[in-house]
Amino acid sequence: MRPVDVISRKRDGHELTAEEIRSFVTAAASGSGWQDAQLSALLMAIYLKGMSAEETVVLTREMTDSGKRLDLSDIPGPKVDKHSTGGVGDKTSLILAPLVAACGVNVPMMSGRGLGHTGGTLDKLEAIPGFRVNLSEAEFRTAVRAVRIGMIGQTRDVAPADKTLYAMRDVTGTVECIPLITASILSKKLAEGIEGLVMDVKCGRGAFMKTREKARALANTIVKVAKLNGLRCEAVITAMDAPLGRAVGNSLEVIESIEALKGNGPADLTELSVNLAARMVQLSGVVKTLAEAERKVTNALTSGQGVEAFRQMVAQQGGDARVVDDYTRLPTAPKTHDVTATSAGVIVSLDAEAIGLASMKLGGGRARSEDTIDPAVGVIVRAKPGEEVRVGDAVFTVHYRDESRFHPILPQLHSAYTLTTGSPSELPLILEEVT
Amino acid sequence: MRPVDVISRKRDGHELTAEEIRSFVTAAASGSGWQDAQLSALLMAIYLKGMSAEETVVLTREMTDSGKRLDLSDIPGPKVDKHSTGGVGDKTSLILAPLVAACGVNVPMMSGRGLGHTGGTLDKLEAIPGFRVNLSEAEFRTAVRAVRIGMIGQTRDVAPADKTLYAMRDVTGTVECIPLITASILSKKLAEGIEGLVMDVKCGRGAFMKTREKARALANTIVKVAKLNGLRCEAVITAMDAPLGRAVGNSLEVIESIEALKGNGPADLTELSVNLAARMVQLSGVVKTLAEAERKVTNALTSGQGVEAFRQMVAQQGGDARVVDDYTRLPTAPKTHDVTATSAGVIVSLDAEAIGLASMKLGGGRARSEDTIDPAVGVIVRAKPGEEVRVGDAVFTVHYRDESRFHPILPQLHSAYTLTTGSPSELPLILEEVT
Repeated sequence: MRPVDVISRKRDGHELTAEEIRSFVTAAASGSGWQDAQLSALLMAIYLKGMSAEETVVLTREMTDSGKRLDLSDIPGPKVDKHSTGGVGDKTSLILAPLVAACGVNVPMMSGRGLGHTGGTLDKLEAIPGFRVNLSEAEFRTAVRAVRIGMIGQTRDVAPADKTLYAMRDVTGTVECIPLITASILSKKLAEGIEGLVMDVKCGRGAFMKTREKARALANTIVKVAKLNGLRCEAVITAMDAPLGRAVGNSLEVIESIEALKGNGPADLTELSVNLAARMVQLSGVVKTLAEAERKVTNALTSGQGVEAFRQMVAQQGGDARVVDDYTRLPTAPKTHDVTATSAGVIVSLDAEAIGLASMKLGGGRARSEDTIDPAVGVIVRAKPGEEVRVGDAVFTVHYRDESRFHPILPQLHSAYTLTTGSPSELPLILEEVT
Repeated sequence: MRPVDVISRKRDGHELTAEEIRSFVTAAASGSGWQDAQLSALLMAIYLKGMSAEETVVLTREMTDSGKRLDLSDIPGPKVDKHSTGGVGDKTSLILAPLVAACGVNVPMMSGRGLGHTGGTLDKLEAIPGFRVNLSEAEFRTAVRAVRIGMIGQTRDVAPADKTLYAMRDVTGTVECIPLITASILSKKLAEGIEGLVMDVKCGRGAFMKTREKARALANTIVKVAKLNGLRCEAVITAMDAPLGRAVGNSLEVIESIEALKGNGPADLTELSVNLAARMVQLSGVVKTLAEAERKVTNALTSGQGVEAFRQMVAQQGGDARVVDDYTRLPTAPKTHDVTATSAGVIVSLDAEAIGLASMKLGGGRARSEDTIDPAVGVIVRAKPGEEVRVGDAVFTVHYRDESRFHPILPQLHSAYTLTTGSPSELPLILEEVT
């Protein structure tokens, strides 16, 4: 089979065979057989001509099988995971994993790092002194057995084809393509050895999918392709116009997560974390209905079992569990500054992307994947949509280290909120579910 | 300017700016600034989203300016060239260049080599013992001054961007794309320092453009883009269903070309060569009308000035000019075999592509550009469309060296002609002109 013939068939709008897709994926994983120019030509042809659900199922499976699939069947109990398409202030993984574990369900989670305006679970966890996200497979299995949670980065042998294609898509204008996004996400999740996956598809100005239609299309495809690959899956489409919760920045988000597990979290963050956790518990099969699962998760939260599971998880992965009771053990930025309202009114909207980029520019995130980050810095949202401010009230508190990084972001934060004199319409956080 | 932004704009169907096109072309020529994967992603986006005439004009100009433009203005007299999109048995360059030179017009011609079923002028010329197609620029100028003809390959410094992109298109399914074909052809022709170009756009089963519509679209674009780049240009669309003339194979085609210059050529070959030569002479401005030009070219043919110009051209480039009078000085295949008709009738069609591929497989052409060729082998068409055969009459004579290469092509040649019992409809050779 010649790569040029595969490319030409997709270019002409035909459906690729399993063999053709395998040739492409194998080449991406091994670095031989197809030239880079050929891989990217097919990516662009897929972007512009699409892929059927059947093709996407095969692409996903082949990408998973380009690497290692974890087999966790020797670990007792169901295994489920959650994946988000990425947002600002989205720290739900840190909250829901302990809640789900407290319900008796295993959460073997492979996460990513932050890039651009969005954060990453691994970066947040690494704000905890000593926390190791690069466990060996044996350590990971031990962690899941011991505390029902393992939170690590993707190992090198997971979906190697995705690593090549993901990097290539980033520079060839082929990122925003539903079949390619679906295969990229699911290939890695299928490699985790889980039985169920809850997808949080973010939608809005701070999200990858800006419109409801695009978010819905992605959610539908992911759920369909996951199921056809034998993975129980459901998706929720959630609003990502404003940051989730109030904290944006790694150390600040760890604190907010712990507060949420103690029952003191912001309403939106707690609502979404509980909802996603309940869906995971339901998917795992330990309860029958979502209502039952919600009761179970809420009980884990209010009883303190959740925060206890968090503490165990941190200790298990080498982190200093005393942070749970003493936030000064987390990295703290030396300086803070309040961005204050220059007129009075009610916050009607926040620009999550601008706030995420501000945190990134302070050093809390990465412009490029090779950048190093400062876990201490970030932005606290002091006034969320629906909340009233008077002139001089803080809208944001900036936690920063360098003046030179702080000053450029000030104008951006000043234009990252909008006020209204009326009362803003209440926007739901969970917009739709796709099952 | 980031490559990914340029790619994304074309992907979304926007018109690229001159600056964006320049960035792409400069990178293709220099090998830096854009990754291969980015070059090919843009090629695929151009294939699927197209380019306006304005974009194609800029692409062409930038590709020319990625290398050296010859300045032949110190050589007296007009300079014109002809280019064909490639066919089987197409040896018109060898005939028309001497005819045009004999009319007092310079022909500084840079040609290509054969690939697949199509032949190349350089390969045919190299069948002549001693003939050098790799003249230095100084030798090329001397040749044009001395005999009004220079026939060489593209030097390394002509349109380097095209070399990269052409090779990449070949393996990425982005060959058949009118803006890219146009820019590839014209960038090299603009670099020749010519004032006029006659395009022979082949159309039919043995051609790159299989349908009249596609051939017309290409011809229109080439003529428009050439003119907007300051090059006088006209195109003819000519039939390429059957081979042109009777000879297919390098040495065999040289003989047929010399016979044509002596006035003994097949009607179709002579007609097209004279027509193209006349258009070149008219474009050069030495006469006013095509009819005048035709008279001048016909006179060059019948007077023997054409064959004399051929002799001089061969000698000028180091070739053995005695081949003109003694064909045994050309490489000759040791064996011949007649493919004979198994039923009687009139030849209604020949499959030029199959015949071209047969010659290639005998060693007369290249499956891949790095293959070496055998100038002696090839196929003579003994019965052209419209000619009658009885059972046992030769339809083809195969000139070959190796039995192992000869046997596999026999079945192909046996199915490369169709007979009719009625009289076939006369198909014109020159189908359309585009001016």
